[in-house]
Amino acid sequence: MKIYDTPGFPNPARIRIVLAEKGLDAQVQFIKVDLVGAEHKQAAFLAKNPTGVVPVLELDDGTLLTETIAIATYLDNLDGKPTLTGATPRERAIILMMHKRADDQLIDAIGAYFHFGTQGLGTQVLPHKSPEWAGRKEWADRQRDKYIKGLRDFNEVLKSQPYLAGQQFSIVDISTFAALIHADFSGIAIPDDCEALIAWRAKVAERASVKNRSGLALDADDLRRLGL
Amino acid sequence: MKIYDTPGFPNPARIRIVLAEKGLDAQVQFIKVDLVGAEHKQAAFLAKNPTGVVPVLELDDGTLLTETIAIATYLDNLDGKPTLTGATPRERAIILMMHKRADDQLIDAIGAYFHFGTQGLGTQVLPHKSPEWAGRKEWADRQRDKYIKGLRDFNEVLKSQPYLAGQQFSIVDISTFAALIHADFSGIAIPDDCEALIAWRAKVAERASVKNRSGLALDADDLRRLGL
Repeated sequence: MKIYDTPGFPNPARIRIVLAEKGLDAQVQFIKVDLVGAEHKQAAFLAKNPTGVVPVLELDDGTLLTETIAIATYLDNLDGKPTLTGATPRERAIILMMHKRADDQLIDAIGAYFHFGTQGLGTQVLPHKSPEWAGRKEWADRQRDKYIKGLRDFNEVLKSQPYLAGQQFSIVDISTFAALIHADFSGIAIPDDCEALIAWRAKVAERASVKNRSGLALDADDLRRLGL
Repeated sequence: MKIYDTPGFPNPARIRIVLAEKGLDAQVQFIKVDLVGAEHKQAAFLAKNPTGVVPVLELDDGTLLTETIAIATYLDNLDGKPTLTGATPRERAIILMMHKRADDQLIDAIGAYFHFGTQGLGTQVLPHKSPEWAGRKEWADRQRDKYIKGLRDFNEVLKSQPYLAGQQFSIVDISTFAALIHADFSGIAIPDDCEALIAWRAKVAERASVKNRSGLALDADDLRRLGL
């Protein structure tokens, strides 16, 4: 299998954590996409994924899978023992519900704030993601507020259960953790009163699939080009 | 089981078509939510679904399921014979990928155009969905353009396969069909050159789960209040 992605970015991190949780790292060849250079918005990449985002999983028969929930469902079931995406239809339904909320309320909202309200990925990506327009700043602020509201909703969920889809760690926890990484990068912290969420984050950060993992950090060249 | 929804609206239509495909209509009690009166943005409904959208499926044990893909996955597996959400992990992954694209590129984009670029659901819902701001019109136009781009992407898919996730009708076809209903309502037609998509739509419209179904039309009272 091949994965087209970029180390250190939030959506690639989601799948890299899935691979580590499932012990599948060695079965994947990683091919770097130059996000800072807007490679994901050029024709060659768009032929693989018309929505122009990473990561893309290419199976050995050439099948192309995109979208975190789809890639994670495929990888999680390769060994016939799903642990991250639900083992029964009811578990799968609850995970799909919570994952859609994580995508809409957290991942997409903080992503929009990053691209509309900060320097984003710089001058090469800006025209694709957030061209100048009158409502840019107000839209960014609204997406930030939506993200904070999402954090509060998720904090409520974690007051009565250890993980976001129930008793077990799942892809919902992975995607939410990635959203928090993106928010850190965008200068948006968890509100102090979201105590359940803060405790949950500390617990997830200690997992072997997350802790001290090199593939979750930006490459030196990308750090330099982003002025970091 | 109970479903909280509103007849004739696009997201409720998605689940009503699922119920008809699975022969489950008689097992569900429908409870109408007054969308035109913004009931879905009030505390009582938000306690059931903090994201403030319909439909919500309430199971007999009180479990609340929201989000089309989650509700459809649950209902599709009640008889142990899933036909709409994938029978194998690989089928499920492809359906999840295409359904995420349908949500992002079509359902959400035309929904945003409807609320930001037209009268939407009127004065009671407007403050919740699209308050006045400088970028409102431009944002609406961009969402319309995103939707049209999504139609073209989906038209490409349908040039080489009969349904959006492959050889079988699935929840992706249902959600995409609902997006087209919403677009009609918003005054946005399929471009004439999307011939594969136009032929696919005509085929789906002939299914028993869609054709002449009363639950897919707006109630008379809602028609009147929307000035239609």
